[in-house]
Amino acid sequence: MRIVELPEIEAVLDEDAALAAVEDGFRRMQRGGVHLAEVSHLAFGDPPGDCHVKGGHITGDAVFVFKFATSFYRNPELGLSSSNGFMIVVSAQTGEQLAMLRDQGYLTDVRTALAGAISARAIVRPGSKVLGIVGTGIQARMQARMIARLLGLTDVLIHGRSMDKAKALAAEIGGRAVALPELCARADLVVTTTPSTVPWLRAEMVRPGTRIVAVGADTPGKQELETELTGRARVIVDSRVQCVDHGEAGWAVRAGLIASDALIELGALLERPIAFEPDEIVVADLTGVAVQDIAIAKTVWNRLAAA
Amino acid sequence: MRIVELPEIEAVLDEDAALAAVEDGFRRMQRGGVHLAEVSHLAFGDPPGDCHVKGGHITGDAVFVFKFATSFYRNPELGLSSSNGFMIVVSAQTGEQLAMLRDQGYLTDVRTALAGAISARAIVRPGSKVLGIVGTGIQARMQARMIARLLGLTDVLIHGRSMDKAKALAAEIGGRAVALPELCARADLVVTTTPSTVPWLRAEMVRPGTRIVAVGADTPGKQELETELTGRARVIVDSRVQCVDHGEAGWAVRAGLIASDALIELGALLERPIAFEPDEIVVADLTGVAVQDIAIAKTVWNRLAAA
Repeated sequence: MRIVELPEIEAVLDEDAALAAVEDGFRRMQRGGVHLAEVSHLAFGDPPGDCHVKGGHITGDAVFVFKFATSFYRNPELGLSSSNGFMIVVSAQTGEQLAMLRDQGYLTDVRTALAGAISARAIVRPGSKVLGIVGTGIQARMQARMIARLLGLTDVLIHGRSMDKAKALAAEIGGRAVALPELCARADLVVTTTPSTVPWLRAEMVRPGTRIVAVGADTPGKQELETELTGRARVIVDSRVQCVDHGEAGWAVRAGLIASDALIELGALLERPIAFEPDEIVVADLTGVAVQDIAIAKTVWNRLAAA
Repeated sequence: MRIVELPEIEAVLDEDAALAAVEDGFRRMQRGGVHLAEVSHLAFGDPPGDCHVKGGHITGDAVFVFKFATSFYRNPELGLSSSNGFMIVVSAQTGEQLAMLRDQGYLTDVRTALAGAISARAIVRPGSKVLGIVGTGIQARMQARMIARLLGLTDVLIHGRSMDKAKALAAEIGGRAVALPELCARADLVVTTTPSTVPWLRAEMVRPGTRIVAVGADTPGKQELETELTGRARVIVDSRVQCVDHGEAGWAVRAGLIASDALIELGALLERPIAFEPDEIVVADLTGVAVQDIAIAKTVWNRLAAA
């Protein structure tokens, strides 16, 4: 088994190939061509932490993938990252472990940003010009870069709870730090990337026709969009089951504002694109699914194996 | 994370410490002090194979453990081992991966043999002298050595489907290869280690008072002991749920010969020893549980961390 450290992973990752693989993964999931293992989970109380193991195989692929990830929430007090983990690439012919990708969370960040860009492309209004990014962390940075590249939205507005961080990010990526009302008034596409548990994007702020990609809600309790906003939007989900359980969609479903079967899975949207009404609000609710991990790890492995 | 290869694992493994840790693990499991993750599983059809990920934490331990294992049944046709895998030792304080034990199945073999020896000690008739081993593979070898050491049973009879292999093993460990009837007529304790799907140890062969440790049945369909033999014995199980699902006990429960709640868990037996009747037939049905993996990986890690 090859042990691959982060610098090598960064060096070989081909973002175009990864984008194609993740999009293909969503489509195959829709067609029933992805076999996912049950998630294995351990929870810890003192100190509080979680460990998740997820894996699966895309039918016909030469490899399958498992991802091992821990989150220990008090690690930053010790000067440590809260997240740790790796992915394992395994031969689907022999079960031999081919590679351990010690990506330090990098591949999860990239595959999350890729799903954001794929959803944005599927829901964006033709003629859109302005991208609004809310949040100033790794996802804010990555989503801004990927979406600018994929959709040509280079007029970027950034808002964060810390305006200093928003200004620093704006300087870094060539955007402009603005207050939330201005961002909502001008952005054609809004990407929300915060770990908030208080919905700060309110229905009244959002113009008709706004398209929103929400990537913050990945565990129960998190919420970026006011329930009423999601409830009145057309909602795309990466996984109906997950988004009803712990995504933005779940809040609206539990409030009775939207029916679970009205949610459109991203894979279905990619297979059969929808011509949304120009003044429709469309929300893509992304909680992160294992097929993204499988797709990106496979992409890295293909490059390593070819080299 | 430290990557530890087999020779180093073999060099640091302290069998006495591992025995104590595995026994302690069974006791703690009984007392509710072990937190096991759901098993994550993928099955493959062409070529046929399985992948299992199992993990857990013994309350209060500084580390938790996940085991990753694949079995691809046609690998031997390619000159490869059918089994591949590793164990990961993780800090229960920070979630950091401390060590990857690339044991090539060795630790699973040892923890299986240790559970055999622990069960044998708990059910053996006082004054027992003769150990009968059925099978000629790794478990036959390891069980013979551990039980001889732990219980002082040095008069060892060996039977195998291939008498050549039985003779070779007998020569290696200082025992004697015999036919099955002779083994049954003389052995006080019989350990069955075959992957058979046809029950070859029949009730009529077994003398009153015989104690049997059966380690072969670890997946549905396998069976070493005739259902009637298990049905008339006192039955110890490493896990009631697993043994009813795919152990020797399951055949007798499904045949209505024994009630599921009459099965005695090994942890309970260790916590409250039973004085079996001298002429009772007692069967220990071992399917393998995650606490054994946790215990043995922890033992190895403790030695590595101390060194």
